[in-house]
Amino acid sequence: MKVITSVTQMHAVAQQYAKDGTLGFVPTMGYLHEGHGSLIERAVQENDRAVVSVFVNPTQFAPGEDLSSYPRDLEKDLAFCQSLGATAVFHPEPNEMYGPNFAAIVEVPSLTVNLCARARPSHFKGVCTVVAKLFNIVAPTRAYFGLKDAQQFFILRRMVLDLNFPIELVGCPTVREADGLAMSSRNSYLSLTERKAAPILHKALEEGRALILAGEKKRAPIIDKIQRVLATEPLVSLEYVELVETLGLRQTDEITGEVLCALAARIGTTRLIDNFIFS
Amino acid sequence: MKVITSVTQMHAVAQQYAKDGTLGFVPTMGYLHEGHGSLIERAVQENDRAVVSVFVNPTQFAPGEDLSSYPRDLEKDLAFCQSLGATAVFHPEPNEMYGPNFAAIVEVPSLTVNLCARARPSHFKGVCTVVAKLFNIVAPTRAYFGLKDAQQFFILRRMVLDLNFPIELVGCPTVREADGLAMSSRNSYLSLTERKAAPILHKALEEGRALILAGEKKRAPIIDKIQRVLATEPLVSLEYVELVETLGLRQTDEITGEVLCALAARIGTTRLIDNFIFS
Repeated sequence: MKVITSVTQMHAVAQQYAKDGTLGFVPTMGYLHEGHGSLIERAVQENDRAVVSVFVNPTQFAPGEDLSSYPRDLEKDLAFCQSLGATAVFHPEPNEMYGPNFAAIVEVPSLTVNLCARARPSHFKGVCTVVAKLFNIVAPTRAYFGLKDAQQFFILRRMVLDLNFPIELVGCPTVREADGLAMSSRNSYLSLTERKAAPILHKALEEGRALILAGEKKRAPIIDKIQRVLATEPLVSLEYVELVETLGLRQTDEITGEVLCALAARIGTTRLIDNFIFS
Repeated sequence: MKVITSVTQMHAVAQQYAKDGTLGFVPTMGYLHEGHGSLIERAVQENDRAVVSVFVNPTQFAPGEDLSSYPRDLEKDLAFCQSLGATAVFHPEPNEMYGPNFAAIVEVPSLTVNLCARARPSHFKGVCTVVAKLFNIVAPTRAYFGLKDAQQFFILRRMVLDLNFPIELVGCPTVREADGLAMSSRNSYLSLTERKAAPILHKALEEGRALILAGEKKRAPIIDKIQRVLATEPLVSLEYVELVETLGLRQTDEITGEVLCALAARIGTTRLIDNFIFS
């Protein structure tokens, strides 16, 4: 497995790969867990070669967010990628990605109004811009993203369609711990007590989903149910829980097509997200 | 010469071209003149194949600008491209480029503060977005732009660098009429009297350049000279004349590196631009 730190070299290697087969790509911020593992496995299975990027992208963190404390363990990440059959890992330094005069921005403004964009207004600009860069550097056939970050997936899907990136975007199911907690690198921030409380996020969403399965189409009772379940756990401070249609990510009062039900909450100081998609 | 109207077909054809050689690309809004001709000739000479796009991009016109009246002559454009040896012309309809849920934006905010961006604040967003789309659709080796649109060139150069488009951007010298007027599709809007007055734009810039060549390094006397020359022509209404460094397009009070001296002016109702680069 190659470990590449230079943009120029990554592009040259990827161009070679593209000449004789398909290329799967998994962009990550590292500190890899089984959720990432499921993406890498699919990228390896479905393509002739697979590249994983490990890059804690500074531009998607706002001042005061957890950029400096974001967990990192490159050696473990490399061993994990190798064990899953990745062909190469791209691990650039921030100044290799962003020179001193860096100025371009890619964004999807109409999809960055609701959900996580309310609390993190600049976050998805950073995500779209770095993913556009990575797509141009790696030029993959397919790129794999976890649906735990559902808003990110729908925004990137829009970006790929609108900007005509010749790349197939693959959204992969959220991988969960045995007790239902969505896997996340940020789970490592949780104390033992907080960790025990955290599965309530998934449990609450599951009760909302059960209502829909039982025939409920209206937004209000679904959201109300989820909020009431979350209120039983005093360690949870809810940031939002919302029901939106998946094309425009606009709040919907009644389910008529595919919807995303998503939430963000703090447990202690740790901000976690989770969701389900119903179609 | 192929004439292609579908994004999917253009991408497939371009992928075929890319397999066995280099591809030059000239994005235009049509109504082609010798300025475009010089770009097409270079694209044909320097690459195995050359694609010209003819697309009056609606998103780079603000409400009240000349989108509906912008001159068009597809048949003449196709004959011109064929005569110069282009391999294909890409001529999509607006709804082929922008679907009903189109939402992505590419921009370079720090370079879109001065010069033409003052009067046309949304213009370069439209330009960057459509050029990013065209780059992904055509995937050329090299793309050719006229330096008459100097701000556009410097913005796109930044976009290509920052977003890692694997494309060489080639800036080509402004082509002029015998009397010095920079060629532009918008020259067709000028009445005979206005057409006779229009070369003053180039003449004024030339006098500014002569001052620099004579050793002047300060902004004020250079701008003053140009303004005084323009003031001798009552048909000219100056929008701006500015001296900026070419990296950040920020006003410079003293020439220390490469500078762009650019102006925009109305002659009657027609907005024209011209410039020189000094390095």
